[in-house]
Amino acid sequence: MKRKAVVLLSGGLDSAVTLFWAVARGYECHCLTFDYGQRHNREIESAKRIANAAKAGIEVVKLDFPWKGSSLTDRSIDLPSGRTAKDIQSGGIPSTYVPARNTIFLSIAASFAEAICADSILIGAHFEDSSGYPDCRKSYLEAFRGVIESGTIRGSSGRLLLEFPLIEKSKSEIIMLGRSVGAPFALTWSCYKGGELPCGSCDSCVLRLKGFREAGMEDPLLNPEDLFARNKRGQTPFEGV
Amino acid sequence: MKRKAVVLLSGGLDSAVTLFWAVARGYECHCLTFDYGQRHNREIESAKRIANAAKAGIEVVKLDFPWKGSSLTDRSIDLPSGRTAKDIQSGGIPSTYVPARNTIFLSIAASFAEAICADSILIGAHFEDSSGYPDCRKSYLEAFRGVIESGTIRGSSGRLLLEFPLIEKSKSEIIMLGRSVGAPFALTWSCYKGGELPCGSCDSCVLRLKGFREAGMEDPLLNPEDLFARNKRGQTPFEGV
Repeated sequence: MKRKAVVLLSGGLDSAVTLFWAVARGYECHCLTFDYGQRHNREIESAKRIANAAKAGIEVVKLDFPWKGSSLTDRSIDLPSGRTAKDIQSGGIPSTYVPARNTIFLSIAASFAEAICADSILIGAHFEDSSGYPDCRKSYLEAFRGVIESGTIRGSSGRLLLEFPLIEKSKSEIIMLGRSVGAPFALTWSCYKGGELPCGSCDSCVLRLKGFREAGMEDPLLNPEDLFARNKRGQTPFEGV
Repeated sequence: MKRKAVVLLSGGLDSAVTLFWAVARGYECHCLTFDYGQRHNREIESAKRIANAAKAGIEVVKLDFPWKGSSLTDRSIDLPSGRTAKDIQSGGIPSTYVPARNTIFLSIAASFAEAICADSILIGAHFEDSSGYPDCRKSYLEAFRGVIESGTIRGSSGRLLLEFPLIEKSKSEIIMLGRSVGAPFALTWSCYKGGELPCGSCDSCVLRLKGFREAGMEDPLLNPEDLFARNKRGQTPFEGV
């Protein structure tokens, strides 16, 4: 019998690579995605298409909390824009941090994993390009592993793992891994804004562009030349990198 | 300025004592309660009355997951009933275990705490009388403390604590503590069933009755003599204790 994995799938690039990595390792995958009022909720549609491409099940969990506290869910706060990768990586925790988001997602994944008797929970978090969110650090994920091992039935008997295969990889390494496991980059959505096309200037677009460039690949979604022409500030996302 | 606490308030006895303990220690308390499809959802009304009695704010968060996996949320599974306290304490993890429930509640509390800049999160978990749920163990709560310290902004700068003041107390000690801090026992609801009166035979009623008896106090909700008369099996909840 195949081992079962619960995969946190946001619809972005990193979680898509994680899903296809898990499929390549022989897991029967059950995806979880969240509708938490994010601006870029078109990523939920992306998540469904990616799960479908992987022949994996997907559950969409709706979360609605009375508080916000992030520019990703509160439209009255401006998103950071036009920063270079260097700005992002040295700028501390940005306003796009959603308080305890990964902790909530992992907790619900733990509940789902107990209910379906899964063997593993997979999350595509990685720190290098993660804008400095505290809940993308390796030490955090190791602490959460302790919660699963002590606070769930399957975890406390060694039958439920928490895996974070991308944690030490750079964006370009993730993209190269994704290519090797057949991740469908064209179906993924990274932009924080909910537009028709990626904006090319939010933190997430900038880091994605840099990753593809460093991997020596072309992003099927973002063409840097087009973005340069569109960018009103006349600054490419690569400046200062 | 008063220190702020987020208090997980279920409407049961333990969390009510925790709230009044926090008020007595000078915290400005903000309660969180959850509507997660539990049979005994009259405890949500109890939580509101208890918060009101403590002059604390309360947020009700609705959670609706597509999976169940517990007799507390799935009405097609029978609740354990008619067990003695000894049966409960030696019987392993019962069907009332809701997968990763405290982890989900604590995660959402961490998010709320970040949003309102709270100094502490309080949970009334305790192991001795907790029916053996893995997410009521001290080792589990210590692991979750590590998650808060590494995965939140306030926790990682030492400004957010996780406190579990009841963890090593017995039910009777909790009841005596509750009396000393003025917890309104008459407003609490412990029974797993959603009836008009407590059933007196579910695990939660049995442990509550035992606690009041050992504390030498009368429970304003549960009169053991009445329960004895009502119990069809002719067995008091104290037999075998």
